[in-house]
Amino acid sequence: MSIDQQLKPLREKIDAVDAQILALLNSRAELAQQVGHLKANTNAPVFRPEREAQVLRGVAERNPGPLPSLDIQLIFREIMSACRALERRVTVAYLGPAGTFSEQAVFQQFGHAIVLLPCISIDEVFRTTEAGTADFGVVPVENSSEGAVNRTLDLLLQTSLSISGELSIPVQHSLMTNSGDFAGVTKICAHSQALAQCQAWLNQHYPTIERIAVASNGEAARMASLDPTVAAIAGETAGAQYELQVVHAHIQDDPHNRTRFAVIGNTQCTPSGKDQTSIVLAVPNKAGAVYSLLAPFSQFGVSMTRFESRPARTGTWEYYFYVDVEGHQQDDSVARSLNELKNSAAFFKILGSYPLSN
Amino acid sequence: MSIDQQLKPLREKIDAVDAQILALLNSRAELAQQVGHLKANTNAPVFRPEREAQVLRGVAERNPGPLPSLDIQLIFREIMSACRALERRVTVAYLGPAGTFSEQAVFQQFGHAIVLLPCISIDEVFRTTEAGTADFGVVPVENSSEGAVNRTLDLLLQTSLSISGELSIPVQHSLMTNSGDFAGVTKICAHSQALAQCQAWLNQHYPTIERIAVASNGEAARMASLDPTVAAIAGETAGAQYELQVVHAHIQDDPHNRTRFAVIGNTQCTPSGKDQTSIVLAVPNKAGAVYSLLAPFSQFGVSMTRFESRPARTGTWEYYFYVDVEGHQQDDSVARSLNELKNSAAFFKILGSYPLSN
Repeated sequence: MSIDQQLKPLREKIDAVDAQILALLNSRAELAQQVGHLKANTNAPVFRPEREAQVLRGVAERNPGPLPSLDIQLIFREIMSACRALERRVTVAYLGPAGTFSEQAVFQQFGHAIVLLPCISIDEVFRTTEAGTADFGVVPVENSSEGAVNRTLDLLLQTSLSISGELSIPVQHSLMTNSGDFAGVTKICAHSQALAQCQAWLNQHYPTIERIAVASNGEAARMASLDPTVAAIAGETAGAQYELQVVHAHIQDDPHNRTRFAVIGNTQCTPSGKDQTSIVLAVPNKAGAVYSLLAPFSQFGVSMTRFESRPARTGTWEYYFYVDVEGHQQDDSVARSLNELKNSAAFFKILGSYPLSN
Repeated sequence: MSIDQQLKPLREKIDAVDAQILALLNSRAELAQQVGHLKANTNAPVFRPEREAQVLRGVAERNPGPLPSLDIQLIFREIMSACRALERRVTVAYLGPAGTFSEQAVFQQFGHAIVLLPCISIDEVFRTTEAGTADFGVVPVENSSEGAVNRTLDLLLQTSLSISGELSIPVQHSLMTNSGDFAGVTKICAHSQALAQCQAWLNQHYPTIERIAVASNGEAARMASLDPTVAAIAGETAGAQYELQVVHAHIQDDPHNRTRFAVIGNTQCTPSGKDQTSIVLAVPNKAGAVYSLLAPFSQFGVSMTRFESRPARTGTWEYYFYVDVEGHQQDDSVARSLNELKNSAAFFKILGSYPLSN
């Protein structure tokens, strides 16, 4: 019996399962349409990040296998995206052009059944979202090499938008030269953060070659394209712009090196059961002020997951502090600690409460 | 009653549907695993393009809505990708870096549950696939601006690989300058194909501005970055490399302008029911030779969907002809016409029969 004859009964069973899946997808879509009709009467938003986060967590928790939960979540993200699009395709602004890591982040959050609005700057992402041209914006908040984070943090201070989600995607560094060969290289150039992220690898493989920090990995790539004694550390996209050849791929010490993105929009997320709250605050510059300011978190048992200070560029305060805590601002302990903070901080702003990424 | 209370029963129904979908996805995966076990005894390939094409066509044909068939197909592509990955993740080589249109084409064909192998050249895509390091390669065959097509066509002449699929993705051109303003521009530069593709738009909007064809759209972008009297037509990726600003987005006359990609691999596809066959041939350079060569197609009622001549760079023949016809080489009419062609052509090679893209 040929392999195709042996496979035939199995394929017929798969076809039968597919027919059931097809029917259920459309049943789900009809229910989503009914949700849409109810919402239409109340101006409730089409995309509810907390609801989608719950669905994705739910299917992962109940997943018996053999399909891995990550693959199940990817499939359900597209199912929700397609169902949502029957109500209306949400428009998402992001730092373009098409085909960048930002676009990858957009698909990771919203699925593919959306309208893409690539912008030429982070400012424009905020502007188009504030103006309502886009329903959501996706902006980098922690970027290992491109330095975009500062502009995002500045704009978050003033925007009327809330953070409604966060996600991260992998970022990898490669060692590249013009020729693809390392012979003759006397300097390795990169942004200081990229050099730091590849430190152990460099110590092991090229301990004696001089390392030079430059303005950006893109600049390092440009230098390497002009000078055969220079090797650059950069992402392969930057390398390709300058037609560099890869000498060693993926040399960052942490193979899970990632860029974090924030989703911003006019939506305030309600609690999803597993949330995070981002705030910014400032205090007068005196010893111990920050420490005592943060006391309410420990008092109410709220965990800080991120704490970052950033020099203020204008205004009265010398530093702004960006703090992420576990929990939703509607959770009792978070609400009470934020309330105390608010009274003692000189500047205080809640950037948003949103579901922790799955 | 609050909107959330009104939505609750609907959401419970959606959750129940999701639970059924989840169970069916895993039933499907178990069946796919059984297929994998059967195949393992026979060295049959994990990825069968013709089988997946049939599944995608089937769900589209049987789809009652309300979900659009394109969205259904996107979901099923990911379902098949995840199920296939339980057997083994297929490795796909493509023209890197990550985040390019080629990568988008890879996901469009294989879903996300694969191993990506970005290559630095089209030659390397062929080499790694021929060597078996990658199961499949994805290469551009018709590219409106980057000129990659010629190298692909040359390599297809000699490779031992077969074409096992084709797909296309949208490509868009924008008019860009250094300042984002058109004032002071005296020349519009681009690759000749891009100028041609935007001709009607340019005639309407800037009939009096000189148009200059340059080596590539990337070169035009570089020129515009250095000279405020130059505007470039290019994709936004190329524009972003040179920090150009968009004056007018998406000015190509055909809003459906696309780049075509071929999937190459060691697999010979069997008939899927809706296939295409690609061949290359050459004839001695005498009047009427090509016309009479192609007579068998008309004789056996086979439709040509593409016919392209290309000067031979080496060898005996002046031109190679790349021909696509409807149908599979195992179809009677196609087989008989190819057989006649083979006897009368000086050079004849079947590049592959493969499912028409959905």
